[in-house]
Amino acid sequence: MKHPFTPGHEPLFLSPADVTGMVIRQGLPAMLRGMAAYIQEDFLRWNSFDKSARVASHSPGGVIELMPIADAGHYSFKYVNGHPANTAHGLPTVMAFGVLANVATGMPLLLSEMTLTTAIRTAATSAVAALALARPGSRVMALIGNGAQSEFQALAFHHLLGIDELRLFDTDAAATAKLMRNLQASPDAAGLRLRACTGSTQAMQGADIVTTVTADKARAAIVRAGMLGPGTHLNAVGGDCPGKTEIHPDVLAGAKVFVEYEPQSRVEGDVQQMPARFAVTELWQVLAGQAPGRDCAAQITVFDSVGFALEDFSALRYLHDQAMASGVGRRLPLMAQLDDPKDLYRLVRPNGLVPAQPLNHPSLKSGAHPTEMAPA
Amino acid sequence: MKHPFTPGHEPLFLSPADVTGMVIRQGLPAMLRGMAAYIQEDFLRWNSFDKSARVASHSPGGVIELMPIADAGHYSFKYVNGHPANTAHGLPTVMAFGVLANVATGMPLLLSEMTLTTAIRTAATSAVAALALARPGSRVMALIGNGAQSEFQALAFHHLLGIDELRLFDTDAAATAKLMRNLQASPDAAGLRLRACTGSTQAMQGADIVTTVTADKARAAIVRAGMLGPGTHLNAVGGDCPGKTEIHPDVLAGAKVFVEYEPQSRVEGDVQQMPARFAVTELWQVLAGQAPGRDCAAQITVFDSVGFALEDFSALRYLHDQAMASGVGRRLPLMAQLDDPKDLYRLVRPNGLVPAQPLNHPSLKSGAHPTEMAPA
Repeated sequence: MKHPFTPGHEPLFLSPADVTGMVIRQGLPAMLRGMAAYIQEDFLRWNSFDKSARVASHSPGGVIELMPIADAGHYSFKYVNGHPANTAHGLPTVMAFGVLANVATGMPLLLSEMTLTTAIRTAATSAVAALALARPGSRVMALIGNGAQSEFQALAFHHLLGIDELRLFDTDAAATAKLMRNLQASPDAAGLRLRACTGSTQAMQGADIVTTVTADKARAAIVRAGMLGPGTHLNAVGGDCPGKTEIHPDVLAGAKVFVEYEPQSRVEGDVQQMPARFAVTELWQVLAGQAPGRDCAAQITVFDSVGFALEDFSALRYLHDQAMASGVGRRLPLMAQLDDPKDLYRLVRPNGLVPAQPLNHPSLKSGAHPTEMAPA
Repeated sequence: MKHPFTPGHEPLFLSPADVTGMVIRQGLPAMLRGMAAYIQEDFLRWNSFDKSARVASHSPGGVIELMPIADAGHYSFKYVNGHPANTAHGLPTVMAFGVLANVATGMPLLLSEMTLTTAIRTAATSAVAALALARPGSRVMALIGNGAQSEFQALAFHHLLGIDELRLFDTDAAATAKLMRNLQASPDAAGLRLRACTGSTQAMQGADIVTTVTADKARAAIVRAGMLGPGTHLNAVGGDCPGKTEIHPDVLAGAKVFVEYEPQSRVEGDVQQMPARFAVTELWQVLAGQAPGRDCAAQITVFDSVGFALEDFSALRYLHDQAMASGVGRRLPLMAQLDDPKDLYRLVRPNGLVPAQPLNHPSLKSGAHPTEMAPA
């Protein structure tokens, strides 16, 4: 009997091990550069996209979000959670996966891990914004919050901006120790001077750029008025949901503030603390030359980053292109394929053949064979 | 070197072949009955759910939608497309997959095909509604629209309602011939009399229940005033997005209309044609005994079904329970697992080991091994 599935339309699947392998083979700096180029390219096509704020489902322990976006050719969405207590159970606070699909047919092209990918695309986006907004020749960066995302931010600014000195601070000294250990052992951080600081004030003093990646699910004021020298660029990554902020409103009031997608940032970003009339500029306008970035060398600029679906679209597009070119990944039988697409019932029509008894949940990592059809 | 992934938290993956195997082993009638029981149970817990209308991305060729919902324990979403021209390219008009996740951690428990599953859950929902709304003793059903979903509707009403005569009509005679061929060859349709009709008027004459499952992406009036006898229950499945309707407004005006989730149905259902003050009753209220169903034997009742996220939640819950009990499916390495969840960078830290050159996109159906780590 011919099996009623016809192959050829299966999406590519990239596991965490697949993406990890891609990063290690390419090198993280090359991956950051590649993803930054795709993000820049897509931000320049801003008006080609059907955009919406993400859809969040809040619970006492955290949040699960879906982040869809589409242009005329491709549709993508990311599934991402945020559960601060996860680390106590050995799970990451933030986990994610994403799908890139063909708009013309609705068929997924790619299903990929995005836990690691999100950290890379966030750092790449920060670098794209800083290249447009920070003072040229910036060399010293304060990195406040030394958790899971901090190495990616450090290496993005080292390789894409030319930052050669990092001032580190975290309320958890173990986090700073981990970051220093990881960077000191990495050839990718060669030439990057590291200085652990005793407080955020010390870390920010004399910094050209200040990056905040703290994870408190609460109102915080990591950066207060007077802590930033004139001309500083503040890359504020951690304030990213209602009630979660890092920057004191006085800092925002005295700075020029840039956001990704205004309708989402007004709700989720640090600018949620400001009145609706407080002016913000969307980053794409600066990249496209439609709005000025910093107005003078002494101005404080803030990139109030919350993470926008377009960055995931770019990241998935990059992963798909790289995986197709290099042969990484496997095809996943996700969507039913039919000889006659109007005859769905044919899949389950009783016909004297019953599938063999299944194995007991083997992992796809173990290379298990799928259920086979066998005569009854 | 110990690999930095720790297993044990991988979601179960059910391919179309896995779900097909489950249906064939259980029998479609048992699957319809099982899923109907889960749907009924979840509709009775209506107020436990965080509900929202689905998020649609429209394009000239179709639509891609995300349908999220959650209660205190589980979160689910379905990805589903609708592309009428797909059948010309050998692809189904509607394809879907879904995810069931743990609200406490955000970790997915199940990733499953839902192309086949959606047809089963839609028919099960129709049967749940008809059991509450149709006249007891209904035996004759007209089935207008004999495409991919029609066999599932036919068997749901035969096995769950006791329908023993079907009057069939489709503007495409080949669709009716396919439906008759499939049912005549199926032991599941034993005792079900089939009558192909020359028009929808003839098909509806004397029917206790009328089911419409047409797929036009346009305003249509398959059912017009005067076509339905007194006491008929109309199970209207095909009108399910803005601009796509099957029922003439006069039919709705003269009937008692029931919907799944009012905010979504007002936009997508046949009731999109009615003024906002036109009364509708949510099905869960009838099931829970909080609102009457039909008021008298002569009343025409309409279930204006558009498909709601809760039905997919129930279907995924059912699939997960069945798959866990029977050992169907495989574990999919979708989410990065970390020894130290605060140390994401460890995954990609250069360490003298580089992954082996990958294979060239083998299918997971072929039992391919994943990328392995090897010394450089």
